[in-house]
Amino acid sequence: MKATVITIGDEILIGQIIDTNSAWIGQQFNEFGVKIHEIISCGDDATQITQALDRAKSTSQIVLMTGGLGPTKDDITKKTLVDYFNTELELNEEVWAKMKQFFEKRGLAVLEMNRSQAMIPKASTMLPNLKGTAQGMWFDIDGVVFISMPGVPHEMKHLMETQVIPRLKQKFTFPKIIHSTLSVAGAGESVIANMLKEFEEQIPASIKLAYLPEFGVVRLRLTGSGEGEALKKQIEEQKAKIKAALGNFVYSDADEKLYVTIGKMLVEKKATISCAESCTGGHISHLLTSIEGSSAYFEGSVIAYSYDVKEKLLGVTHKTLQTYGAVSSECVTEMLDGLLKATGTTYGIAITGIAGPGGGTPEKPVGTVWIAVGSQEKKLVKKFQFFTTRMENIRVFSNAALNMLRLFIAE
Amino acid sequence: MKATVITIGDEILIGQIIDTNSAWIGQQFNEFGVKIHEIISCGDDATQITQALDRAKSTSQIVLMTGGLGPTKDDITKKTLVDYFNTELELNEEVWAKMKQFFEKRGLAVLEMNRSQAMIPKASTMLPNLKGTAQGMWFDIDGVVFISMPGVPHEMKHLMETQVIPRLKQKFTFPKIIHSTLSVAGAGESVIANMLKEFEEQIPASIKLAYLPEFGVVRLRLTGSGEGEALKKQIEEQKAKIKAALGNFVYSDADEKLYVTIGKMLVEKKATISCAESCTGGHISHLLTSIEGSSAYFEGSVIAYSYDVKEKLLGVTHKTLQTYGAVSSECVTEMLDGLLKATGTTYGIAITGIAGPGGGTPEKPVGTVWIAVGSQEKKLVKKFQFFTTRMENIRVFSNAALNMLRLFIAE
Repeated sequence: MKATVITIGDEILIGQIIDTNSAWIGQQFNEFGVKIHEIISCGDDATQITQALDRAKSTSQIVLMTGGLGPTKDDITKKTLVDYFNTELELNEEVWAKMKQFFEKRGLAVLEMNRSQAMIPKASTMLPNLKGTAQGMWFDIDGVVFISMPGVPHEMKHLMETQVIPRLKQKFTFPKIIHSTLSVAGAGESVIANMLKEFEEQIPASIKLAYLPEFGVVRLRLTGSGEGEALKKQIEEQKAKIKAALGNFVYSDADEKLYVTIGKMLVEKKATISCAESCTGGHISHLLTSIEGSSAYFEGSVIAYSYDVKEKLLGVTHKTLQTYGAVSSECVTEMLDGLLKATGTTYGIAITGIAGPGGGTPEKPVGTVWIAVGSQEKKLVKKFQFFTTRMENIRVFSNAALNMLRLFIAE
Repeated sequence: MKATVITIGDEILIGQIIDTNSAWIGQQFNEFGVKIHEIISCGDDATQITQALDRAKSTSQIVLMTGGLGPTKDDITKKTLVDYFNTELELNEEVWAKMKQFFEKRGLAVLEMNRSQAMIPKASTMLPNLKGTAQGMWFDIDGVVFISMPGVPHEMKHLMETQVIPRLKQKFTFPKIIHSTLSVAGAGESVIANMLKEFEEQIPASIKLAYLPEFGVVRLRLTGSGEGEALKKQIEEQKAKIKAALGNFVYSDADEKLYVTIGKMLVEKKATISCAESCTGGHISHLLTSIEGSSAYFEGSVIAYSYDVKEKLLGVTHKTLQTYGAVSSECVTEMLDGLLKATGTTYGIAITGIAGPGGGTPEKPVGTVWIAVGSQEKKLVKKFQFFTTRMENIRVFSNAALNMLRLFIAE
């Protein structure tokens, strides 16, 4: 069983947006054992879309399209599908009524152009989109399922989760695959691979190990083809061996973000957290607050970019900044002290470094970062050196800080 | 003249990595007027790569491949190209010597496996990769140029800039396309489309308008095929009409992020900024500091998630929080006052709302947000209501706040 993904939109071809939809769809399908044969990105052009559909149906039983369903003239996916399947549009009264409601609720006038979005091809099953005005469409033609979804990522995900995946699971019998993932931080991919050398030599051929690195975190995924308790047990045994080999580099038994794990630890300890961020400019706080319920433990932060704010809000002394500079053990320690005094949280993270591309010196090159984590009683201060671009440094610095906090709390 | 991009790698199809290479290549080609006909992502599979090459050469004069050039067994792009072009590999002594140097410099032993990376197809011109061990290859066969590059983004970019683009410009005379983009905030896609109804009726057929919405910002792109001052002038005339129709919804004459525009405004005014963020949890500060040089105007922020931090660090009164709640005009005003007092910056942004999915009430549903922007002299306070998911609310709230600040500064 194979699937093809077609992402439609001139904006993809000219690089104005990065197509993240197909990677997300690829992940989902990989989870339940369906191979993505190919991803095709084509323009808002009927001939191109038609050719992509022809090719897709020659190799795949499932064809997933995203994009080109907006209310504006350049969006022609629906029209092309109507021609391709030799059908016609009809007004779906229910969709139209909901759409009018949708706009009214927002205090907006519904526009004539939105009415075109309530027109659904007769040959399709409408997949209701509760997050926007472009409905999904499901065509089941000669044993191949063609699914058209909007290109807006959260609308596409919503349709996939509530409509497409349940319907596909009903229609097809998917092959069985068992995945089990561990999350690791504090070491790069090659260091981990080296620690797992012996492990890899003994792993049964029926189980595969994949390394998924991202910004200083590596997820390790074990995959076995088949089903049943025996295979599950076998995979869990392998997982236990990885955990034994990697020790406390493993921060979660599951595929989990570091800030999620930390959230759980803080909830369990009924503890609170605050941050004093310089070079990460709010990114650590953003990560911590990106999950629901984070207000249970995240109290707040001070983003201290300038010397002035470091002094005024965190009580870093002028002398420290003058003598050692902002990127120093002394400064990060004072930042943490000042933070805990100001917020009174159980734990604190302080971070100061050089994200780049400017601001480096021979002694403190771009990628240098000082991190302090701790509580009123105890502090841990450490220097790291990374070697990447500004945005990536910000992300890698953030994970390094969160990982230090994790180890500190666990101790 | 058309080009096809083929990105090769199983890790793309299973969503392990997001393919950013093709978007980058798309941007480059768009700049010099070559249309990307299609982007194909396929697996590390000889049949699939061969089929993609067949299709690509039937529509395109330029075929760009990335990925599958690593030293491991699963990387088969080079072998497939050798078969496809009926050629053979030979050791490139120069590459081999450099590769040995490359490893020595990093204190690593060169592996026999790496020797395969110094083998270059006879039918190709080798494109030297100074950033890694996988060399680029250039095949010029029957009027079609096939280029193979490594998948590591910075190596691919390096090869494109130093080798591929100069060679392509020498070989081909590129057609001309003129793009011109405007950036708009404060209104959604359909509201803007409605304001541009008359404009769209008069736009010459030779010029196309595309809407590119993202988190409350919409980029409007005009595209004309051709070259010369006349077309340029015509596009600029159309652009002026859009600006007239949309007024101060237009925040930039270019394709620009809102936080970049604000950075420029602040630099020009020699002004500084700080934020008091509740519901956005540091995201506005993260955006403002994601660009180089932001330390010239961004001083810092207070992320005040809890009542306690709102009181302690921003001086919001307990009475206000008790009487009106944190999501109120009163609270956001006190947050802004306290912020400006604490940081002393020229301008400030304060924001408090309900990102969701929990925390909503009938009077203050999820998506409610109060924003205050201002200086010591003057304040602007406004309530917005959005209707999306937590992460998207955080992004849309952030852009709404930045847009309010923009309008405030511009006044």
